[in-house]
Amino acid sequence: MSLFSKDIQTLDDLYVHTLKDIYYAEQKIVKALPSMIEKADDDELREGFSEHLELTKTHVRRLEQVFELHGVEPKAVDCPAIDGIVEEAEEIAGDVEDSQVLDAALIAAAQAVEHYEITRYGSLIAWAKQLGKEDEAVVLAETLAEEKETDETLSALAERKINLRSAA
Amino acid sequence: MSLFSKDIQTLDDLYVHTLKDIYYAEQKIVKALPSMIEKADDDELREGFSEHLELTKTHVRRLEQVFELHGVEPKAVDCPAIDGIVEEAEEIAGDVEDSQVLDAALIAAAQAVEHYEITRYGSLIAWAKQLGKEDEAVVLAETLAEEKETDETLSALAERKINLRSAA
Repeated sequence: MSLFSKDIQTLDDLYVHTLKDIYYAEQKIVKALPSMIEKADDDELREGFSEHLELTKTHVRRLEQVFELHGVEPKAVDCPAIDGIVEEAEEIAGDVEDSQVLDAALIAAAQAVEHYEITRYGSLIAWAKQLGKEDEAVVLAETLAEEKETDETLSALAERKINLRSAA
Repeated sequence: MSLFSKDIQTLDDLYVHTLKDIYYAEQKIVKALPSMIEKADDDELREGFSEHLELTKTHVRRLEQVFELHGVEPKAVDCPAIDGIVEEAEEIAGDVEDSQVLDAALIAAAQAVEHYEITRYGSLIAWAKQLGKEDEAVVLAETLAEEKETDETLSALAERKINLRSAA
Protein backbone atom coordinates (compact mmCIF):
# COMPACT_ATOMS: atom_id res chain seq x y z
CA MET A 1 0.00 0.00 0.00
CA SER A 2 1.08 3.53 -0.60
CA LEU A 3 2.86 5.28 2.22
CA PHE A 4 1.76 8.70 1.04
CA SER A 5 -1.95 8.52 0.34
CA LYS A 6 -4.88 6.84 1.98
CA ASP A 7 -6.26 4.50 -0.65
CA ILE A 8 -9.40 3.34 1.12
CA GLN A 9 -12.15 5.95 1.02
CA THR A 10 -15.37 3.92 0.96
CA LEU A 11 -16.77 0.62 2.21
CA ASP A 12 -16.51 -0.59 -1.40
CA ASP A 13 -12.76 0.15 -1.33
CA LEU A 14 -12.40 -1.72 1.98
CA TYR A 15 -14.35 -4.67 0.56
CA VAL A 16 -12.19 -4.88 -2.59
CA HIS A 17 -9.01 -4.52 -0.51
CA THR A 18 -10.12 -7.40 1.73
CA LEU A 19 -10.99 -9.54 -1.31
CA LYS A 20 -7.39 -9.00 -2.46
CA ASP A 21 -6.09 -9.86 1.02
CA ILE A 22 -7.95 -13.19 1.16
CA TYR A 23 -7.03 -13.90 -2.50
CA TYR A 24 -3.38 -13.67 -1.42
CA ALA A 25 -4.11 -15.80 1.66
CA GLU A 26 -5.83 -18.60 -0.30
CA GLN A 27 -2.92 -18.72 -2.75
CA LYS A 28 -0.43 -18.84 0.14
CA ILE A 29 -2.34 -21.78 1.61
CA VAL A 30 -2.25 -23.62 -1.74
CA LYS A 31 1.54 -23.26 -1.56
CA ALA A 32 1.85 -24.23 2.15
CA LEU A 33 -0.35 -27.33 2.22
CA PRO A 34 1.85 -29.74 0.18
CA SER A 35 4.58 -29.48 2.83
CA MET A 36 2.03 -30.12 5.59
CA ILE A 37 0.74 -33.18 3.69
CA GLU A 38 4.31 -34.44 3.42
CA LYS A 39 4.99 -33.97 7.13
CA ALA A 40 1.75 -35.55 8.41
CA ASP A 41 2.16 -39.07 9.78
CA ASP A 42 -1.46 -40.20 10.07
CA ASP A 43 -3.10 -41.36 6.81
CA GLU A 44 -6.46 -39.83 7.65
CA LEU A 45 -4.82 -36.47 8.45
CA ARG A 46 -2.88 -36.60 5.17
CA GLU A 47 -6.10 -37.30 3.28
CA GLY A 48 -7.83 -34.47 5.16
CA PHE A 49 -5.08 -32.04 4.18
CA SER A 50 -5.23 -33.23 0.55
CA GLU A 51 -8.98 -32.59 0.42
CA HIS A 52 -8.32 -29.20 2.05
CA LEU A 53 -5.85 -28.41 -0.74
CA GLU A 54 -8.43 -29.21 -3.44
CA LEU A 55 -11.05 -27.11 -1.64
CA THR A 56 -8.61 -24.20 -1.34
CA LYS A 57 -8.05 -24.26 -5.11
CA THR A 58 -11.83 -24.04 -5.52
CA HIS A 59 -11.87 -21.05 -3.15
CA VAL A 60 -9.28 -19.26 -5.29
CA ARG A 61 -11.48 -19.77 -8.36
CA ARG A 62 -14.57 -18.59 -6.46
CA LEU A 63 -12.77 -15.40 -5.47
CA GLU A 64 -11.97 -14.81 -9.14
CA GLN A 65 -15.68 -15.16 -9.82
CA VAL A 66 -16.46 -12.57 -7.11
CA PHE A 67 -13.88 -10.14 -8.56
CA GLU A 68 -15.55 -10.59 -11.95
CA LEU A 69 -19.05 -10.03 -10.56
CA HIS A 70 -17.72 -6.88 -8.91
CA GLY A 71 -16.15 -5.69 -12.17
CA VAL A 72 -12.56 -5.55 -10.95
CA GLU A 73 -9.42 -7.45 -11.95
CA PRO A 74 -8.42 -10.28 -9.57
CA LYS A 75 -5.33 -9.08 -7.74
CA ALA A 76 -3.58 -10.07 -4.52
CA VAL A 77 -2.19 -7.70 -1.87
CA ASP A 78 0.26 -8.76 0.81
CA CYS A 79 -1.44 -10.23 3.84
CA PRO A 80 0.92 -10.12 6.84
CA ALA A 81 -1.63 -12.04 8.92
CA ILE A 82 -1.54 -15.23 6.83
CA ASP A 83 2.22 -14.83 6.39
CA GLY A 84 2.56 -14.84 10.19
CA ILE A 85 0.20 -17.79 10.67
CA VAL A 86 2.07 -19.89 8.06
CA GLU A 87 5.48 -18.82 9.42
CA GLU A 88 4.42 -19.93 12.90
CA ALA A 89 3.17 -23.28 11.52
CA GLU A 90 6.51 -23.90 9.81
CA GLU A 91 8.48 -22.86 12.90
CA ILE A 92 6.58 -25.20 15.19
CA ALA A 93 6.69 -28.06 12.68
CA GLY A 94 10.46 -27.71 12.59
CA ASP A 95 10.62 -27.86 16.37
CA VAL A 96 8.66 -31.07 17.02
CA GLU A 97 10.64 -34.31 17.27
CA ASP A 98 7.90 -36.93 17.61
CA SER A 99 5.79 -37.61 14.51
CA GLN A 100 2.55 -38.13 16.44
CA VAL A 101 3.00 -34.89 18.41
CA LEU A 102 3.81 -33.22 15.09
CA ASP A 103 0.40 -34.34 13.78
CA ALA A 104 -1.27 -32.60 16.74
CA ALA A 105 0.72 -29.43 16.00
CA LEU A 106 -0.11 -29.60 12.27
CA ILE A 107 -3.82 -29.97 12.88
CA ALA A 108 -3.78 -26.96 15.26
CA ALA A 109 -1.87 -24.95 12.63
CA ALA A 110 -4.41 -25.85 9.95
CA GLN A 111 -7.21 -24.75 12.28
CA ALA A 112 -5.50 -21.38 12.84
CA VAL A 113 -5.54 -20.95 9.05
CA GLU A 114 -9.23 -21.92 8.87
CA HIS A 115 -10.15 -19.42 11.59
CA TYR A 116 -8.38 -16.61 9.77
CA GLU A 117 -10.41 -17.41 6.68
CA ILE A 118 -13.65 -17.76 8.65
CA THR A 119 -13.28 -14.28 10.12
CA ARG A 120 -12.36 -12.63 6.79
CA TYR A 121 -15.17 -14.30 4.80
CA GLY A 122 -17.57 -13.35 7.62
CA SER A 123 -16.66 -9.66 7.25
CA LEU A 124 -16.71 -9.85 3.43
CA ILE A 125 -20.21 -11.36 3.38
CA ALA A 126 -21.55 -8.68 5.75
CA TRP A 127 -19.97 -5.94 3.60
CA ALA A 128 -21.20 -7.46 0.30
CA LYS A 129 -24.77 -7.48 1.68
CA GLN A 130 -24.39 -3.91 2.93
CA LEU A 131 -23.22 -2.90 -0.54
CA GLY A 132 -26.23 -4.61 -2.15
CA LYS A 133 -24.04 -7.27 -3.78
CA GLU A 134 -26.21 -10.24 -2.87
CA ASP A 135 -24.84 -12.37 -5.73
CA GLU A 136 -21.29 -11.95 -4.42
CA ALA A 137 -22.41 -12.65 -0.85
CA VAL A 138 -23.91 -15.97 -2.01
CA VAL A 139 -20.62 -17.09 -3.61
CA LEU A 140 -18.58 -16.02 -0.56
CA ALA A 141 -21.03 -17.83 1.74
CA GLU A 142 -20.40 -21.12 -0.07
CA THR A 143 -16.72 -20.83 0.78
CA LEU A 144 -17.41 -19.77 4.38
CA ALA A 145 -19.60 -22.86 4.90
CA GLU A 146 -16.77 -25.08 3.62
CA GLU A 147 -14.17 -23.36 5.83
CA LYS A 148 -16.35 -23.96 8.89
CA GLU A 149 -16.92 -27.57 7.88
CA THR A 150 -13.16 -28.13 7.43
CA ASP A 151 -12.51 -26.63 10.88
CA GLU A 152 -15.10 -28.94 12.45
CA THR A 153 -13.73 -31.99 10.61
CA LEU A 154 -10.22 -31.18 11.88
CA SER A 155 -11.48 -30.67 15.47
CA ALA A 156 -13.28 -34.01 15.35
CA LEU A 157 -10.23 -35.82 13.94
CA ALA A 158 -8.00 -34.23 16.60
CA GLU A 159 -10.26 -35.25 19.45
CA ARG A 160 -11.12 -38.72 18.12
CA LYS A 161 -7.62 -39.81 17.17
CA ILE A 162 -4.70 -37.40 16.74
CA ASN A 163 -4.50 -36.02 20.29
CA LEU A 164 -4.93 -39.53 21.69
CA ARG A 165 -2.03 -40.87 19.61
CA SER A 166 0.13 -37.86 20.44
CA ALA A 167 -0.27 -38.46 24.18
CA ALA A 168 0.50 -42.18 23.94
CA MET B 1 13.45 -21.49 19.26
CA SER B 2 16.71 -23.30 18.84
CA LEU B 3 17.89 -23.94 15.31
CA PHE B 4 19.90 -26.98 16.35
CA SER B 5 17.63 -29.10 18.53
CA LYS B 6 14.00 -30.02 18.44
CA ASP B 7 12.59 -28.83 21.72
CA ILE B 8 9.13 -30.34 21.52
CA GLN B 9 9.14 -34.05 22.27
CA THR B 10 5.77 -34.69 23.90
CA LEU B 11 2.20 -33.41 23.82
CA ASP B 12 2.94 -31.79 27.18
CA ASP B 13 5.82 -29.86 25.55
CA LEU B 14 3.50 -28.76 22.70
CA TYR B 15 0.85 -27.70 25.22
CA VAL B 16 3.31 -25.61 27.26
CA HIS B 17 4.76 -24.07 24.09
CA THR B 18 1.28 -23.07 22.93
CA LEU B 19 0.47 -21.60 26.37
CA LYS B 20 3.58 -19.42 25.93
CA ASP B 21 2.48 -18.47 22.41
CA ILE B 22 -0.97 -17.31 23.52
CA TYR B 23 0.56 -15.61 26.61
CA TYR B 24 2.62 -13.50 24.17
CA ALA B 25 -0.46 -12.92 21.99
CA GLU B 26 -2.66 -11.71 24.87
CA GLN B 27 0.06 -9.29 26.00
CA LYS B 28 0.45 -8.03 22.43
CA ILE B 29 -3.31 -7.38 22.29
CA VAL B 30 -3.17 -5.45 25.58
CA LYS B 31 -0.57 -3.21 23.88
CA ALA B 32 -2.46 -2.89 20.57
CA LEU B 33 -5.97 -2.10 21.85
CA PRO B 34 -5.38 1.43 23.21
CA SER B 35 -4.49 2.65 19.72
CA MET B 36 -7.62 0.98 18.29
CA ILE B 37 -9.73 2.65 21.00
CA GLU B 38 -8.19 5.99 20.06
CA LYS B 39 -8.88 5.50 16.35
CA ALA B 40 -12.49 4.31 16.71
CA ASP B 41 -15.12 6.91 15.86
CA ASP B 42 -18.29 5.30 17.17
CA ASP B 43 -18.83 5.56 20.96
CA GLU B 44 -20.28 2.09 21.25
CA LEU B 45 -17.32 0.61 19.37
CA ARG B 46 -14.88 2.49 21.61
CA GLU B 47 -16.67 1.16 24.69
CA GLY B 48 -16.62 -2.35 23.20
CA PHE B 49 -12.86 -2.13 22.65
CA SER B 50 -12.36 -0.79 26.20
CA GLU B 51 -14.25 -3.75 27.64
CA HIS B 52 -12.22 -6.02 25.39
CA LEU B 53 -9.03 -4.52 26.84
CA GLU B 54 -10.15 -5.22 30.42
CA LEU B 55 -11.14 -8.78 29.48
CA THR B 56 -7.77 -9.32 27.79
CA LYS B 57 -5.97 -8.31 31.00
CA THR B 58 -8.08 -10.93 32.82
CA HIS B 59 -7.03 -13.50 30.21
CA VAL B 60 -3.36 -12.74 30.85
CA ARG B 61 -3.90 -13.37 34.57
CA ARG B 62 -5.82 -16.57 33.87
CA LEU B 63 -2.96 -17.86 31.76
CA GLU B 64 -0.61 -17.18 34.68
CA GLN B 65 -2.95 -19.29 36.81
CA VAL B 66 -2.78 -22.13 34.23
CA PHE B 67 1.04 -21.95 34.16
CA GLU B 68 1.01 -22.21 37.96
CA LEU B 69 -1.41 -25.16 37.97
CA HIS B 70 0.90 -26.82 35.46
CA GLY B 71 3.97 -26.15 37.62
CA VAL B 72 5.88 -24.03 35.09
CA GLU B 73 7.00 -20.41 35.09
CA PRO B 74 4.82 -18.06 32.98
CA LYS B 75 6.88 -17.19 29.93
CA ALA B 76 6.10 -15.79 26.48
CA VAL B 77 7.52 -17.02 23.17
CA ASP B 78 7.35 -15.03 19.95
CA CYS B 79 4.10 -15.56 18.09
CA PRO B 80 4.52 -14.54 14.43
CA ALA B 81 0.81 -15.17 13.84
CA ILE B 82 -0.45 -12.45 16.21
CA ASP B 83 2.38 -10.17 15.09
CA GLY B 84 1.12 -10.54 11.50
CA ILE B 85 -2.53 -10.03 12.46
CA VAL B 86 -1.73 -6.85 14.42
CA GLU B 87 0.63 -5.58 11.69
CA GLU B 88 -2.14 -6.02 9.13
CA ALA B 89 -4.63 -4.20 11.39
CA GLU B 90 -2.24 -1.24 11.74
CA GLU B 91 -1.50 -1.18 8.01
CA ILE B 92 -5.15 -1.10 7.04
CA ALA B 93 -6.02 1.46 9.73
CA GLY B 94 -3.35 3.74 8.29
CA ASP B 95 -4.81 3.34 4.83
CA VAL B 96 -8.44 4.28 5.50
CA GLU B 97 -9.44 7.91 5.01
CA ASP B 98 -13.07 7.95 6.17
CA SER B 99 -13.66 7.54 9.93
CA GLN B 100 -16.80 5.45 9.50
CA VAL B 101 -15.14 3.08 7.03
CA LEU B 102 -12.22 2.93 9.48
CA ASP B 103 -14.62 1.68 12.16
CA ALA B 104 -15.69 -1.17 9.84
CA ALA B 105 -12.01 -2.02 9.25
CA LEU B 106 -11.20 -1.86 12.98
CA ILE B 107 -14.06 -4.16 13.92
CA ALA B 108 -12.96 -6.71 11.28
CA ALA B 109 -9.39 -6.49 12.60
CA ALA B 110 -10.57 -7.11 16.16
CA GLN B 111 -12.52 -10.13 14.96
CA ALA B 112 -9.41 -11.55 13.26
CA VAL B 113 -7.66 -11.28 16.64
CA GLU B 114 -10.59 -13.01 18.38
CA HIS B 115 -10.57 -15.87 15.89
CA TYR B 116 -6.86 -16.46 16.42
CA GLU B 117 -7.49 -16.73 20.14
CA ILE B 118 -10.55 -18.96 19.65
CA THR B 119 -8.57 -21.49 17.64
CA ARG B 120 -5.59 -21.54 20.05
CA TYR B 121 -7.73 -21.88 23.19
CA GLY B 122 -9.72 -24.62 21.43
CA SER B 123 -6.54 -26.65 20.83
CA LEU B 124 -5.22 -25.94 24.34
CA ILE B 125 -8.42 -27.16 25.98
CA ALA B 126 -8.43 -30.38 23.93
CA TRP B 127 -4.77 -30.99 24.83
CA ALA B 128 -5.28 -30.17 28.55
CA LYS B 129 -8.08 -32.75 28.70
CA GLN B 130 -5.97 -35.31 26.83
CA LEU B 131 -3.19 -34.71 29.38
CA GLY B 132 -5.62 -35.23 32.27
CA LYS B 133 -5.37 -31.56 33.33
CA GLU B 134 -9.09 -30.99 33.80
CA ASP B 135 -8.52 -28.06 36.21
CA GLU B 136 -6.48 -26.22 33.58
CA ALA B 137 -9.05 -27.02 30.87
CA VAL B 138 -11.77 -25.41 33.03
CA VAL B 139 -9.80 -22.14 33.38
CA LEU B 140 -8.98 -22.05 29.65
CA ALA B 141 -12.63 -22.73 28.79
CA GLU B 142 -13.72 -19.61 30.73
CA THR B 143 -11.52 -17.51 28.48
CA LEU B 144 -12.66 -19.32 25.32
CA ALA B 145 -16.29 -18.61 26.18
CA GLU B 146 -15.46 -14.90 26.59
CA GLU B 147 -13.53 -14.77 23.30
CA LYS B 148 -16.50 -16.27 21.46
CA GLU B 149 -18.87 -13.86 23.17
CA THR B 150 -16.69 -10.88 22.20
CA ASP B 151 -16.61 -12.07 18.59
CA GLU B 152 -20.41 -12.38 18.52
CA THR B 153 -20.85 -8.95 20.14
CA LEU B 154 -18.57 -7.39 17.51
CA SER B 155 -20.42 -9.17 14.66
CA ALA B 156 -23.74 -7.91 16.00
CA LEU B 157 -22.45 -4.34 16.39
CA ALA B 158 -21.01 -4.43 12.84
CA GLU B 159 -24.24 -5.66 11.29
CA ARG B 160 -26.56 -3.49 13.38
CA LYS B 161 -24.69 -0.21 13.06
CA ILE B 162 -21.07 0.05 11.94
CA ASN B 163 -21.40 -1.39 8.42
CA LEU B 164 -24.55 0.66 7.87
CA ARG B 165 -22.79 3.91 8.83
CA SER B 166 -19.73 3.02 6.78
CA ALA B 167 -21.83 2.59 3.63
CA ALA B 168 -23.72 5.85 4.17
